[in-house]
Parts: sequence; C-alpha cells; structure tokens
Amino acid sequence: MRILLAQINPIIGDLEYNTQKILGAIEDAKKQGVDLILFPEMCITGYPPEDFLLLHDFIDTVHEKLDEIVAASKEITVIVGLPRRHEDKREKHLCNSAAVIHNQKLLGFQDKALLPTYDIFDERRYFDSSQQIKIWDIEGKTLAVTVCEDIWQHSELVKFASYKYDPILAFKEVKPDLLLNLSASPYSRTKLQKRLAAGSNAAVTLDCPVVLCNQVGGNDSLIFDGYSFYVGADGVLRQMAKGFEEDGLVIDLEKEMSPLSFEQDHHQDIYRALVLGLEDYFRKSGFSQALIGLSGGIDSALVACIAVDALGKENVLTLNMPSRYSSQEGINDAKQLAKNLGIERWDIPIEKPFQSYLDLLGPHFANLPTDATEENLQARTRGMILMAISNKFGKVVLSTGNKSELAMGYATLYGDMCGGLGVISDLTKREVYSLSKWINRKGEIIPKGIIERPPSAELRPDQKDSDTLPPYEIVDNVLCDYVEEHIPPKEIAEKHGYPLKVVLELIKRIHANEYKRRQAAPGLRISEKAFSVGYRFPIVQRWI
Amino acid sequence: MRILLAQINPIIGDLEYNTQKILGAIEDAKKQGVDLILFPEMCITGYPPEDFLLLHDFIDTVHEKLDEIVAASKEITVIVGLPRRHEDKREKHLCNSAAVIHNQKLLGFQDKALLPTYDIFDERRYFDSSQQIKIWDIEGKTLAVTVCEDIWQHSELVKFASYKYDPILAFKEVKPDLLLNLSASPYSRTKLQKRLAAGSNAAVTLDCPVVLCNQVGGNDSLIFDGYSFYVGADGVLRQMAKGFEEDGLVIDLEKEMSPLSFEQDHHQDIYRALVLGLEDYFRKSGFSQALIGLSGGIDSALVACIAVDALGKENVLTLNMPSRYSSQEGINDAKQLAKNLGIERWDIPIEKPFQSYLDLLGPHFANLPTDATEENLQARTRGMILMAISNKFGKVVLSTGNKSELAMGYATLYGDMCGGLGVISDLTKREVYSLSKWINRKGEIIPKGIIERPPSAELRPDQKDSDTLPPYEIVDNVLCDYVEEHIPPKEIAEKHGYPLKVVLELIKRIHANEYKRRQAAPGLRISEKAFSVGYRFPIVQRWI
Repeated sequence: MRILLAQINPIIGDLEYNTQKILGAIEDAKKQGVDLILFPEMCITGYPPEDFLLLHDFIDTVHEKLDEIVAASKEITVIVGLPRRHEDKREKHLCNSAAVIHNQKLLGFQDKALLPTYDIFDERRYFDSSQQIKIWDIEGKTLAVTVCEDIWQHSELVKFASYKYDPILAFKEVKPDLLLNLSASPYSRTKLQKRLAAGSNAAVTLDCPVVLCNQVGGNDSLIFDGYSFYVGADGVLRQMAKGFEEDGLVIDLEKEMSPLSFEQDHHQDIYRALVLGLEDYFRKSGFSQALIGLSGGIDSALVACIAVDALGKENVLTLNMPSRYSSQEGINDAKQLAKNLGIERWDIPIEKPFQSYLDLLGPHFANLPTDATEENLQARTRGMILMAISNKFGKVVLSTGNKSELAMGYATLYGDMCGGLGVISDLTKREVYSLSKWINRKGEIIPKGIIERPPSAELRPDQKDSDTLPPYEIVDNVLCDYVEEHIPPKEIAEKHGYPLKVVLELIKRIHANEYKRRQAAPGLRISEKAFSVGYRFPIVQRWI
Repeated sequence: MRILLAQINPIIGDLEYNTQKILGAIEDAKKQGVDLILFPEMCITGYPPEDFLLLHDFIDTVHEKLDEIVAASKEITVIVGLPRRHEDKREKHLCNSAAVIHNQKLLGFQDKALLPTYDIFDERRYFDSSQQIKIWDIEGKTLAVTVCEDIWQHSELVKFASYKYDPILAFKEVKPDLLLNLSASPYSRTKLQKRLAAGSNAAVTLDCPVVLCNQVGGNDSLIFDGYSFYVGADGVLRQMAKGFEEDGLVIDLEKEMSPLSFEQDHHQDIYRALVLGLEDYFRKSGFSQALIGLSGGIDSALVACIAVDALGKENVLTLNMPSRYSSQEGINDAKQLAKNLGIERWDIPIEKPFQSYLDLLGPHFANLPTDATEENLQARTRGMILMAISNKFGKVVLSTGNKSELAMGYATLYGDMCGGLGVISDLTKREVYSLSKWINRKGEIIPKGIIERPPSAELRPDQKDSDTLPPYEIVDNVLCDYVEEHIPPKEIAEKHGYPLKVVLELIKRIHANEYKRRQAAPGLRISEKAFSVGYRFPIVQRWI
C-alpha cells in the first residue's frame, strides 16, 4: 500500500480554498499512483476555527465540501478531517471526525475520543466525545484511524490532563495492520519529540506501522510545524515530512526502509516557527508590509530579522525615533542593522511632540517629581508615530516586546506595546539573546553592540533594565517554572536557591501586569505556555 | 427548618477574606437561630478562579479553609461551594462541589454533574463531572443538593448546550423534602427570569421547595446579580434576596408564605449591574479614582454617571480635551454635565501636540490626502493625555466605547479605546440612549443636547457617525442577531427586510475588527454574548 501524507496549510474558515487544496492533493496522489491519501485534522475548516463551529451555516458548508471531496475520490481512498454533525442527540451535536472515503463512497466516520480541553484547546466547548472503535478494510488491509490526541494518552504525554480511556488499548483488540492519525498539533519547543514518542509507542503496542499527518502553518498565535511521519511496527522512525512548510510525503508500506535518524535544531526550528507565524499572519489576512520601531535594542533587532525572512526586505520599513535620552551607539547600531538587512529606515525624532506634552501637562504636574509618566510619554509618542505611518500606508506594526518584559510589565501600554502581532512575545530575554547569536552564527547580521550593550529602555538618563528588575536570569527562571510548569513559589525558591521573597515578588508582578497583557497584541506561541491564548488568569484577584 | 441564604460577594483568590466572610455569616446564622446556612457555588475561591484551579498550592489552601469552616459549624448545618480534589483517578482530579457539613463534621460532597463549557464558561477545562446522586438527612428532612447548572437542563434553558443527563429527574426517584442549589450565575438581561423558571420547574417536578443561593459581585467582566430565592413546592416564588448587593435571607420552611410578586426593572438592573461591576473592579484591585475623557458625547456622559454612582463624585475626574473640530455645544454640555454630577473637570486642549505630529509627519505624508490617520492622531493624543494623568495620579482611565462601535471598529485603537475597564462596552448604541434617558427620568442630569445631537466623533469638520456607518438601528439589529443569537446572515436579512448585501457587509466589518477588540480593555458583560470573555473567534479567517 502506498500512502500520501498531504501536509497542507489551510486558512481558517476559507472552506473553498481549503477544499481546492484538498482536491488538488487528491489529483496529485492519483498521478503518483497512491492508494490512500491522508489529510490533517479538521483540514476542511483549518484548525482551530473556534466559535465558527457554533454557526449552523458554517457546518452546513463543511458538509457540502465533504460531498465535493467524496465525488473526487474515484479509485482512491481519502481520509480527511472535519467537524461533523452526528446523528444521535449527544450534547454538542458535533464530533471532531475523520471521514473515510473510498472510490467516491463515504464509508463512515471515526470520531475523536479524547477532546483536549486545557491550555490552548477548547474542544469540549464544541464537540462530543466518542468511544466507538471502527476498523476499515481497504485494499486488503485493516486500518485503524485516530484523530490527534487519541494516540497521546497511551504514552501519558498529555501535559495538562489525563484520560481514563486509551484508544490505543481499545484498538489493540482489533489488531489493525496500520494506524493512521490526523493531527493539528501545534509547535512548541518540546512537541516534536513527544509527538514522535506518541506515534512510536502506539506502533509498538499495536505491532503495526503508524502514519501521522499534521497540519502546517500559522493561525493567529498558533504555529503548526508539520513534520508528518511514518514509524514502523518496531516503533522506529522511517520517514518524515518537512517542518514549517507544506509537503506531500509518499510512503510505501511494502518497501523496506532503514531507520531515519533525525536531530532537531532547536534554534533553527524556533526561528522557522516565528518566520512562518509572521508570514501566515500577514498572508492570510491580506497584508504584506510591516513597520518596526528599530531602537538599537536587541528585541527590535531580532524582530527585524524575522520580518525580513518572512516578508522580504522590500516589505519591511523601520523607524528611528530618537529622544533626548537615546544613545548614539544605539542609533548607529540600528542604522547598521538596517543596512545589513537591506531595509528602509526613516528618521523621525520625537523631541517636539514629547516637549509639547510636557508643556501642556506642566501646569497640572507642577511640583510633582518626574516618574514613569514621562517615560511612558516617550514610548507612547513613538507608538503614535508608528500607528500614524501604519494608518497612512497600510503597514502592520510589529510589536517587539519579549516574554520576560510582558511578565514583568516592563513595557508601556499603548506605547511600545502597540502593534498587530507580538513576534517574540513568547521568547524569554535569555532566548532573545540566544536566537540573536544564532542569527549571527555565519557572520555578523545583528551588530555586536546590540547584543553586548546592557539592556535599556533609554527613557531617562543612563537607564538600565537592571535598575528596576532583578537580573533576567532570575526573572526567566521564575517565569518558566511558575508560568509554564506551575511549580509552587516555595519549590521554585528551593530549586534555584533564591530567597522566597524574591520569587514571590516576581510572581506578584506577573499577576499585577495581567491587565497590560490583556491589551497586548496577539503573540506567536512557541513555548508550552504562552501569555497569549491558553493562559487564563483573572485580572482582579488576590491569591498572589 | 430555618435556612439562611448567605448571598456573599467573594474576592477571586482571596481565600482568607472569603473564609472570614463565610465564618462571619455562620456566626450570624447561629445568632439568628438558623438550622442551615447555604452559600454560593465556589464561594471559598470566588467564581471564576480560572487557571488558579491548576495550581496545587491553591487547592491545598482551599482544603485548609474547608477545615476551618467545618470547625466553625458547631450545632449548625453548613453547605458551602468549593473546588475539591476527588479521590478516584478521574481526568481532571477536581470536582466543582458542595461540601455538606453538620455540627463540625464533614458529611460529604455533592459534586456538580453538568459542567457548563460554552460562552463564558470553561468548567470542563478544570473539572470532572459526577452523576452520583446523594441525599442528606438533616433535622429530620431529606435534602438534595445541586450546584448551579444542575437544575437548568430540566427546563431546557441552557442556551449554548444541552445535556443528556438531567439531575432533577435523577433526584425525583429519591423524593427529597427540599432541593438546595449553590449558584454562581452571572447577570445578563434575561437571566433572572430563566433562573427563577429553572428553580420553579425543579420544585414542581420534585414536589418540594427549592432554595437557591447565588453569588453577588463583579469579577473582571462578569457581574453576579445575587437575587437568591425560595420557591415553594408549587413552583411559586415566596422570597427573594436583594439584587446587586450582599444579603442574608432567612427562610422558614414551616411558615406559610404568600406568593411574592416581582417585576424586574430592566433599566434599573442594567444600571445597577454596571455600577456594581465598576465598583468591584476598583475596590477588589485596590483603586479608588477614575479618569474620563468627557467629550460632550452620550457615551462618556453615561460612563460619568455610572462612575459617580460607583465611586463617589470626589473620585471622578473628567477631562475636556477640545480640538479644532470640537463643537462649542458639546463643550458646554460636557461642562454642564460635570456641574450636574459635581465632578471635577480639567481643560487640556490637544491642538499643540496634534499640530506637532502633523508638522513632524508632514514631510512623510506630503501630497497624500488627509484620511483616518489624522483623525486617529487626535484620538490618540487624547489617549496619551488621559494615560499621562492616569500614570501621574494613580487614576484608572475608563473606556467609553459602546458595543455597536466595538462591533464596527468605530473607535481608535490606543486612542479612545485606552482604559482599564470598558464600562459600557456591552451596551448597544440603542441601549446607551435608552439608559441615558432613564437616568434623566426624574430630572435632567445628562443635558438634553447630549442626548439629542446626532452622534459624532468630531475628528473632522461636520463629521457624523452616519457618514460612514449605516443607521445604528440597523447596526444594532444585525449585531444582536448575529453575535448574540448566531442567526445566519440570510435569515437576518429576511427578518428585518434588509438587503443581504448590507447585512453581510456589517458582519464582515464585525469580523474585520476582531484585531481591535482583542486589544480593548476588558468590558463589563450584561448581554448574553459580550465581545469580551465568551466570544472566541479567530482574528485571521476567511469565512466571512
């Protein structure tokens, strides 16, 4: 049996576009003489369609598109993911399903059993679960079909939940010749290894090959990495599709394949994830041009590099917006970076509007000390200039804050937080440095000064981030342990040898800045717990 | 049997404060010689604690607080809501439960069966469901206990879901003498009637009285209205606690009570909901002072009235920030409103910073026509001034946009959308007028001109909202039908006799402005589908 894994990049809600993509892949599969074509989870709608699933006409159209796909399946088996209405009167009236189609006949559906409802997933909001096990006799083989999460419980690799039911054990009794899995499994730093382990363990338990087709592409905050794969009955990886781009991987089950060794380059994958996330955010919403305030700091430098790779240098405009506190070194370094990247750079000094605010507010601020107010005025003046140019020329402002700053509230709401997309908002400061150095691995793109100068917002004379923040190493350790791992404060303090008071103050600061983050641009997610989607804490609370 | 309904206003996560409130109510109940005291759902934590439920030390502390409550229950029965760890290995390890305590002994838990996972509710994210029915013999009576949603399915009043299991029918077999319900049921315009119907229908089916204790208070976007009640076995309302404030209602089941007739004043209740929501947002987060840009338009006028009632006139500062396009009538009316409300008003004309931006950007904008860019610059200059005064004096800016504007994107991001809380962001323009007229019912508080002048953003000469928007009546009808009721576009067009093209353009505009709303201040929810929490659509999509 020859199988094509159609690792496609659907657009949320564009059912016509997605269906055309599916039909095109089917034609391609036929040309390649393939017996079976496997698509990702929910690929008719794109994943996740969120509350579109609640609209009746949306689901009606999904079923119409399924009919088109059935009609196009002459002499081939097609397995495609979709949200479907089920017939009985269960609670949500929908299942997250795989349609199994053979030679223009819809053989039936395998509904998803395990519905992730944690972190970024809300599947219980929309779907009913089904524990009905089906097998499909295709071309003399007994196939078992699973949808994403269904293979994960078996390896106990689900991070925020556990399930009593294990579909892999249920399938063990029917002894399939092959297990297929339709996935929409988003990227995070450690996800691929786990996904491979989930596939491998299922293969060993069932003593049959496992073939998994994953969605690729960026949808709002989520980035799907693809990397569809085939593992043998021995649980060993045999073939893998590309990461972070569309691919069509042909597998011949009868052909002897030697094990595939694969070493993930984490720097490269984080970088490709961010490039893809940015590119798809623009492409899928019809924008092409980005605008960045290039300050001479490392965050905006990294964002500029990503933007150039995602959109092309001709589509990236940067602004130099110096104030009375900007250092000449920073200005020069930003200029050099723009030159290295080949991107345009406009000079718009903020002194005049900044001074006009100080004059206007002077009578009301008389005799009061200078404080964060005046710093925020500068950041907000820059934000206004960025937005004015964005509005006039139809460019999308990229927000350059990192995860550590968002955690600490070390950013100005409506100032440097302005923007349509937070490109590096899920990277800790440590990761920003690490990725910037990786960019320079073959030669200096980001000027050395940007990487080596101590971080500063340059909003008052000789300001350094370290004036008002603990070292980023401490911030980042507490951030990762508390936000991503939910480790209690006491354990964090013990683990790192930090005073409990310091840990508690940082955690308090994380919660106190929830109101700012709630108004931040959506950010690309690359960690297992980003501040954007999947992080749900109240603003007003007194636990911490 | 005498019962006290302890309708309390907990603070999310302040387990000590909430427990003290619970212990105080128990003491009070004892003084009143009451047999049983009933608390709201999850009142040890406040509802909803969201992802705090995922922190182990948080749940540890909840269990410690439960021990304190058990210890304080000498010679009384206490039924209190909490998230509890259950013993068996179900999926989420937590249940949303009612602890039944009698005379310093924890008799056991009734776990919630129906876990709302739709709209604003995410209970499947945290909890396991239980269909185990328990009865409790207390003071010679057989009591059945239910948690919130458990009584709703019986009346088929759950809007976004239906359940196969109906706990009321399950309880029918054990013939209880009394049904108790612990609720955290948030206010929306039509909620009280439904809640009463749910209680009444359960009473009739079980042929026993139903007593329901609901949470009161504002928690971020959600406003809980209280209105705890007692209905007789005949399903007729006998007693009801106050709305929108804490209350302790004593019920004597043996005493003959005549039916209570209750007519809800919807204007008053929406107004009280907004006052409570604003008050609690400030009080629970430790702020007391609000700042409002008072433009002479109806939205900011209404917000000023609500703020004065919530915080006191001494805690409300308003700004007059005229531009070259501001009308003298608007300025005078705003001045009169401030006088009527007895609130302070500072004059800060925006001309100078606005002109300095025009000068600065002039070379880059040369030969390009004036457009929304220049309008946004004015709105953002005002936003910056508001935020500067907010920063300098520790006042929270109130955002004054209404639901119709947020739907249409008729608001400037980082401009008039600045603020810590959207006070009327769930009121359509029609409701803004209606509520403003209600405020004036006994005499003019909001000057007539503010209500009668055609709406205008005053960002260019002679601008009217109607220049770029269809009449608000059409906007509001489409908004309510599509966003709140999920009616397909075709049916909306037919229902109102609007051209389908107009309806589709409005719906397209609603989705196109998702990116703006995602960065809006959290808004108080009063409808059944607010744009804040509970509305989950992708930003990048191509369905519409």
